[in-house]
Amino acid sequence: MRDVAVVGIGMNDFGELWKKSLRTIWAESAFAALADAGVDSVDLITIGCMSPGLFVGQEHLASVLADELGMAGVPASRVESACASGGLALRTGFAEVASGLSDTVLVTGVEKMTDVDGADATYALGTAADQEWEGFHGITFPGLYAMLALAHMERYGTTSEQLAAVAVKNHANGLLNPHAQYHLKVSVEDVLESTMVADPLHLFDCSPVTDGAAAVVLTTVETGQGACRRPAGGPDHRLGPRHRHHHPRQPVRISPSSPRSDWLPNAPTRWPTKSPEDLHVVEVHDCFTIAEVMATEAIGLFDPGYGATAVEDGLTSLQGKIPVNPSGGLKSKGHPVGATGVAQAAEIVTQLRGEAGQRQVEGATVGLAQNMGGSGGSSTVHIMEVVS
Amino acid sequence: MRDVAVVGIGMNDFGELWKKSLRTIWAESAFAALADAGVDSVDLITIGCMSPGLFVGQEHLASVLADELGMAGVPASRVESACASGGLALRTGFAEVASGLSDTVLVTGVEKMTDVDGADATYALGTAADQEWEGFHGITFPGLYAMLALAHMERYGTTSEQLAAVAVKNHANGLLNPHAQYHLKVSVEDVLESTMVADPLHLFDCSPVTDGAAAVVLTTVETGQGACRRPAGGPDHRLGPRHRHHHPRQPVRISPSSPRSDWLPNAPTRWPTKSPEDLHVVEVHDCFTIAEVMATEAIGLFDPGYGATAVEDGLTSLQGKIPVNPSGGLKSKGHPVGATGVAQAAEIVTQLRGEAGQRQVEGATVGLAQNMGGSGGSSTVHIMEVVS
Repeated sequence: MRDVAVVGIGMNDFGELWKKSLRTIWAESAFAALADAGVDSVDLITIGCMSPGLFVGQEHLASVLADELGMAGVPASRVESACASGGLALRTGFAEVASGLSDTVLVTGVEKMTDVDGADATYALGTAADQEWEGFHGITFPGLYAMLALAHMERYGTTSEQLAAVAVKNHANGLLNPHAQYHLKVSVEDVLESTMVADPLHLFDCSPVTDGAAAVVLTTVETGQGACRRPAGGPDHRLGPRHRHHHPRQPVRISPSSPRSDWLPNAPTRWPTKSPEDLHVVEVHDCFTIAEVMATEAIGLFDPGYGATAVEDGLTSLQGKIPVNPSGGLKSKGHPVGATGVAQAAEIVTQLRGEAGQRQVEGATVGLAQNMGGSGGSSTVHIMEVVS
Repeated sequence: MRDVAVVGIGMNDFGELWKKSLRTIWAESAFAALADAGVDSVDLITIGCMSPGLFVGQEHLASVLADELGMAGVPASRVESACASGGLALRTGFAEVASGLSDTVLVTGVEKMTDVDGADATYALGTAADQEWEGFHGITFPGLYAMLALAHMERYGTTSEQLAAVAVKNHANGLLNPHAQYHLKVSVEDVLESTMVADPLHLFDCSPVTDGAAAVVLTTVETGQGACRRPAGGPDHRLGPRHRHHHPRQPVRISPSSPRSDWLPNAPTRWPTKSPEDLHVVEVHDCFTIAEVMATEAIGLFDPGYGATAVEDGLTSLQGKIPVNPSGGLKSKGHPVGATGVAQAAEIVTQLRGEAGQRQVEGATVGLAQNMGGSGGSSTVHIMEVVS
């Protein structure tokens, strides 16, 4: 099995993008990642997207989007695992490069959620729950996570103020991320005074509905290191006159791996598993504030029941012991469901390259991205590390 | 990259299965394949399904179906490439085993098409076409394939009688397949007198709407051969009292590969590509009669323009030079879109094992399955061979 690296990243500015179609935002992020990697061809394209059928009436994205990129004929696939579709796309691309079936893979994620056609967004998102055992009873995702929050409060004494602290932190981080959907500061009071969506979750405990796309380019660590030694120079003729051949950045090694987790399925890996103490920066799936708390406990950053107090105590803030969701998370950056897992990886790579600007976690060389589908039925965990 | 083999197959009886849900038919085929392989655990499950969101209002199948199988926690994924979703699931599982990420993978395909909720089947299937460039103009799949048929007629002089001969052959084969949706003999006259759906395609030129599921178990060739040398015996306690531990069958080596094809994307492979002359049995994607003709030309069985006369001359019948769609094809066996690619592989394996009963192609040791999405935007080609 070959070692795999991320050598290019791209994403668009998340938001309510009324003037752009799914294929437009997808192509923007894909071209950005290809330009960042300095490549103009790939062996395979993989696309994470939850429900283009329900959201925009378009299945068969693999064929449509490869064509949009001018790459008709390049093998392409779409994968879906609800809100973990992006993380699954990453794992699928990883297997292709690791196996030797492909040398270079464009891994992408996309969701266009604000153009709902024929069904509303809550219905479409609700199809990620079990329709026979959950949906039948009328429950939607805010309700499912509200039950998780109530259970956490009951068991560990977690408070609404502690959950609100997650939103406060992530909106503070999102203020520093140009790609984020929201650039606004919120206080604990703002959260607690916002509309109650599903008790105990207020509006500001919930991530938004978002249009967005993200992409990364995977290749072998060896190829990435070779490219890194090429001289930088003038226009890159392979990418056309608009693209200058930049000096390729140091590749970031990636491995599917899941350290110490009850909640999250373990993915086999050859790469030695890191312990939570080895991590410098983490992106987790905060579709609701309680989700961030439970995810940090599940991956072993904090003991069960201590995830909420950790946020309140500032341990997960940008200057804290282990910064969580420096990008602003799903809460502030936005949550285009199929794109989220890929955008998380793009943020970790940005951090490991030291290019995160005002939200940079100083000296970060090892990071983790955790992406989740449904109320935890699917989960992917990817660890990334600067290649030394 | 490791060599990969099919060591178990299963499928349900295709049809309009009003009394069974998607998860029921899926689990039936999955349990059948696991029992056939003699295994009760796998490292990964992959599910090909085109649009469970539009057909039954259920996305996130990976999580729901792993749970249905009693395998919650086993990594699972869903892949989609319209009607090539099953073939894509096969390729995804192949990469997992080839890479060493997984040792044993359950590859499945499923579609429940007769329980349409909120949108009709033609709309759901139409989302496999490009909605901005094709769907916008009101065209559906019968219309797209009718245009392909008219172009073929114009260029090569292909006749409606020749297309009808495809339906006659495939229904004759389907009569011999207990899993087929239809067990009826049709004549050229029956086809030509059936309702015109989209000129020149009549009702009997079209494959039906079907509920169905299929599954295969992949592992390494080495593991498959080792299992084959185990003694056969009494009840297999791992699978419960209903399952007897059968003598495992000879594994069938599988490789993603695409011999000589303009229409079909080439998949990289280490396994030496076979030439069309090496093939003994072929399953192709006959969603419409014209599709079988064009597919046999595209994979190089016949020169362009000779695919239709080949059928009329009996070259592709069960006793012909190169039998095509001995299962009855999509036309007679049925076309549950996400299941089709996996069912094709199951048929080839059945043929290579010499277990196809009345529809057995004598002495077949090399076979090919071609699965297609949309009007050719996606395609997978898998070659299978008895391990000597």
